[in-house]
Amino acid sequence: MSQYKAPLRDMQFALFDVVGAEAEFARLGFSDANRELVEAVLEESARFAENVLAPLNEVGDREGCTHDKATGTVTTPTGFKQAYQQYVEGGWTGLVSAVEYGGQGLPQAVGFPQKEMIDAANLAWGNFPLLSHGATEALLHHGEDWQREVFLKPLTEGRWTGTMCLTEPHCGTDLGMLKTRAEPNEDGSYAITGTKIFITAGEHDLTDNIVHLVLARLPDAPAGTKGISLFVVPKKRVARDGTVGDANEVRCGSIEHKMGIHGSATCVINFDGAQGYLVGQPNKGMSGMFTMMNAARLAVGLQGLGLSDRALQNALAYSRERLQMRSLSGPKFPEKPADPIIVHPDVRRMLLTCKALVEGGRVMSYHAGLLIDTAQHASDEGERQQADALVGFMTPIVKACLTEWGVECTYHALQCYGGHGYIAEHGMEQLARDARITTLYEGTTGIQALDLMGRKVMQLQGAGLKVFLGMVGAFCKEHAGNPAVAGLLGTLQEKAAEWQQLTRQVAERAAANPEEIGAAAYDYLMYSGYVALAYWWARSVVAAEASSHPEAFKAAKRETARFYFDRILPRTLAHAAGITAGAGSLMTLDAAHFDA
Amino acid sequence: MSQYKAPLRDMQFALFDVVGAEAEFARLGFSDANRELVEAVLEESARFAENVLAPLNEVGDREGCTHDKATGTVTTPTGFKQAYQQYVEGGWTGLVSAVEYGGQGLPQAVGFPQKEMIDAANLAWGNFPLLSHGATEALLHHGEDWQREVFLKPLTEGRWTGTMCLTEPHCGTDLGMLKTRAEPNEDGSYAITGTKIFITAGEHDLTDNIVHLVLARLPDAPAGTKGISLFVVPKKRVARDGTVGDANEVRCGSIEHKMGIHGSATCVINFDGAQGYLVGQPNKGMSGMFTMMNAARLAVGLQGLGLSDRALQNALAYSRERLQMRSLSGPKFPEKPADPIIVHPDVRRMLLTCKALVEGGRVMSYHAGLLIDTAQHASDEGERQQADALVGFMTPIVKACLTEWGVECTYHALQCYGGHGYIAEHGMEQLARDARITTLYEGTTGIQALDLMGRKVMQLQGAGLKVFLGMVGAFCKEHAGNPAVAGLLGTLQEKAAEWQQLTRQVAERAAANPEEIGAAAYDYLMYSGYVALAYWWARSVVAAEASSHPEAFKAAKRETARFYFDRILPRTLAHAAGITAGAGSLMTLDAAHFDA
Repeated sequence: MSQYKAPLRDMQFALFDVVGAEAEFARLGFSDANRELVEAVLEESARFAENVLAPLNEVGDREGCTHDKATGTVTTPTGFKQAYQQYVEGGWTGLVSAVEYGGQGLPQAVGFPQKEMIDAANLAWGNFPLLSHGATEALLHHGEDWQREVFLKPLTEGRWTGTMCLTEPHCGTDLGMLKTRAEPNEDGSYAITGTKIFITAGEHDLTDNIVHLVLARLPDAPAGTKGISLFVVPKKRVARDGTVGDANEVRCGSIEHKMGIHGSATCVINFDGAQGYLVGQPNKGMSGMFTMMNAARLAVGLQGLGLSDRALQNALAYSRERLQMRSLSGPKFPEKPADPIIVHPDVRRMLLTCKALVEGGRVMSYHAGLLIDTAQHASDEGERQQADALVGFMTPIVKACLTEWGVECTYHALQCYGGHGYIAEHGMEQLARDARITTLYEGTTGIQALDLMGRKVMQLQGAGLKVFLGMVGAFCKEHAGNPAVAGLLGTLQEKAAEWQQLTRQVAERAAANPEEIGAAAYDYLMYSGYVALAYWWARSVVAAEASSHPEAFKAAKRETARFYFDRILPRTLAHAAGITAGAGSLMTLDAAHFDA
Repeated sequence: MSQYKAPLRDMQFALFDVVGAEAEFARLGFSDANRELVEAVLEESARFAENVLAPLNEVGDREGCTHDKATGTVTTPTGFKQAYQQYVEGGWTGLVSAVEYGGQGLPQAVGFPQKEMIDAANLAWGNFPLLSHGATEALLHHGEDWQREVFLKPLTEGRWTGTMCLTEPHCGTDLGMLKTRAEPNEDGSYAITGTKIFITAGEHDLTDNIVHLVLARLPDAPAGTKGISLFVVPKKRVARDGTVGDANEVRCGSIEHKMGIHGSATCVINFDGAQGYLVGQPNKGMSGMFTMMNAARLAVGLQGLGLSDRALQNALAYSRERLQMRSLSGPKFPEKPADPIIVHPDVRRMLLTCKALVEGGRVMSYHAGLLIDTAQHASDEGERQQADALVGFMTPIVKACLTEWGVECTYHALQCYGGHGYIAEHGMEQLARDARITTLYEGTTGIQALDLMGRKVMQLQGAGLKVFLGMVGAFCKEHAGNPAVAGLLGTLQEKAAEWQQLTRQVAERAAANPEEIGAAAYDYLMYSGYVALAYWWARSVVAAEASSHPEAFKAAKRETARFYFDRILPRTLAHAAGITAGAGSLMTLDAAHFDA
């Protein structure tokens, strides 16, 4: 079974030393959220993740959720319900929610390491409380007063959980095709009818009620995405005064048999004239959908990060214990029958790849968390707008890169085990199976790439990229004479300039041929992720030097940054080639002639 | 459930049009193996793979093998035994085996497409007959006359199957540490005692007897790999006159619960004074081990290829059917509610990546098959040696690249399905899970890389590379004026020159520091694979032009080659950076300070 220990030291380093969250929290008006308090919160969170959730990870995989056809109920794996009760009692569900609705009002950025721990400890379990966040955000920003009153408190306190009901059998990405109908009732509510699939936590036994946020069409709504409205549809009816009634016409028809996250219920939900309430304006449901989706995308990025870290931790322990072959430069442990495999360069390559992507990705994602706080709470409107543009730009990068790296890191970590990694009892193959969902749900990597290239770069004219490049420029200027990053800054500046140039190049080609956007999108996304990570690695080295951490910690950051610049950042060469290659080599071959 | 149709047209194109096997078979003395006959054999093989094996693939995954603790027996999934009987009756087990022992004596190269079909249709099932090949090779090249007489006929006819018993709990790669003992009996046989793990097809219900080839130590054998001997240890005792006796002291203690290939029995085999016979010289068992291993490595490469192809076939069908969003350049099927996703550049990128790796990899591996025939049957000794050097050089490349690409292609193909790919019923996730074993068994990718860099390049001074570069040079010279490859040859020549230069560079650095071998090995291996594939793609374009295939086929080869050169070959830029980076960034960080 795989182990997990929350990397508190590195989490705190990322949040406070690199991202500089303590000063930012104070500046943004989170007067209580000083480093001492946040560290205490994270320590408590680590105990819960390590002691309660992590041991249930294998149980959840083995048992899975079970669905009772007769009643439509879903039973979660042994221990999941008790763990959820402890989570609620600990006040974790409302950690970063508004005080007004029973939350603790901590910055969003504090929720990021807390989520990372949950996902690393037990991804499948984490999906139950996760979706409440999106539902809360949708109701908070788009709901009516009474809806906030009635739904947000139980969601914040964890007495109820939320879902996002978007996908239908014939439409996932293409929500414009959705068919679920909403007919007005006489009392101002609506009767929702249709079938939704892939509904994470759509039915379970953890709470008394479940709050479904459902996309549906009003009668005579325009076709496509301009005719989609958002509704709140509780599992048990809820009146406007908050009274909970009997069962709504919402039923879980089945749950999916999946490659991984067996402990997470992925439901088919049938709405059969279920009572729901319109959230926001008629036909403007896509706006609420994006509110939910953006929150969920960053959260899924953290899932990739958490799994990568857990995989690395176990591969590292195994590589120190497993004795196989001698070092090519002579025995390192002559008293043992063989050297531990961590002496071998290729094992180190795999471990360092994970380390560079995990620790760099941690900083990148926590910074995105802080951007949400800045966009909401900065006193200056220009600053709020800049932060909003940047978090919009970074969201597809964080989601797609951290999940692609999650697949990669769980691959490398399993590979360190050799054939033993393929055997279930070590738990490494579960991490690889669980990671595989993260590049699919809440928008595949291809969809993230289109969001970045089509929307954030083309439509919004790269506003977020400009902010990021400004940060890179300022950092390089400030540290031009800093010996700690002398070997890194030149490359970072070159890559930043190339990034700008590639962006311009695609924009120009796309003006003549819109297919160029889709043709460049994936490589542009990955390219952006690797350059962004180079920046965060350079900043990590500077932050480590300035910190009070021991020399070994500083050396590890320096060496990992060096490894990253030497051996990972050159992947941008291949991605740049993909960006410049253009649409021709993708689009010329007739779709009828792809067969061998 | 995923479908499979053997790509006969492309298999025949690869074997005959690109590799030029018909003339080669004739030249090497396989007088019967003309194109007509081989094509008939492959068509028959396709029927078996498609109709008998492919439908059992999902059954095997769902049921798995079952082990009875009380009797030590293993039951294979429903239908596996009947399929094996049909396979035996069809004469498939001896397709490329010596006529002398009941085989059909066809060239090894004919066995490659035949194996590819089996692996694509049902990888787990294919592992049962697969291991007989290695056992046969070991006995053929190292066994005594009576051992060949007694064991080879039943193995060739498929009445018995073989295994390779190498790994023990504490030693996989590092066979020097193995502990299984062989004590001489009075009758000249040996009593074998020890525990072997990860024994593929170690126990099953398909045949009456199983022939284990076991590595063990004689009393007073020298330590390390110089004290390892090879033994043949049948499940039921076999006397020197061929009489089959009662059960030997060989017992399957358990089978592993694995990520995939559930239908394949991965056994713990306990030898408790089991009767065995020495194969070859005492303490020279590693030689027989390598004979088995080399055959197995190419076969595992074909497994990666087969899975990639099946994954691609299904992703292609899905991408043509699944309607989602409109093309960025305007609706392509305005009469439908949305366009099929194959219109989207990023979906095409994933499909073309698979297509380029599958069709290129097919040629590369079939050519390796022909090299085995050449190394065995060419009349000129110099030619035999050259072929032997080249197949030795290509074996780790074929094994590692085709399996890494198998992981990649099953990833892309699943990704084309979006969230549906994660659901078991589509069968895509099984292909991804099954593919995951291939970069692990018969030597991980890291071990292949060390074999290539350390042994084939350093120890053997790149003899195989020289032969390959000679082929590239001759091809470029011959087709210097050929317009079909005008856009490819310049790049190919540059890459070939760079390959040579990088090889020299690593060799020089390794003379000063042996860690440089391990530090460069993985990137060097992948770099080599991509440049080799560029050569085979250029040759494929030339071969297609010269063939009688319709223009659409030729255009597909041209466009896929263009895609490969534009968008896949640039991965060599990143790998070249990894090669030149050297050992420093891998080896400096203290193993104690890898933790976050």
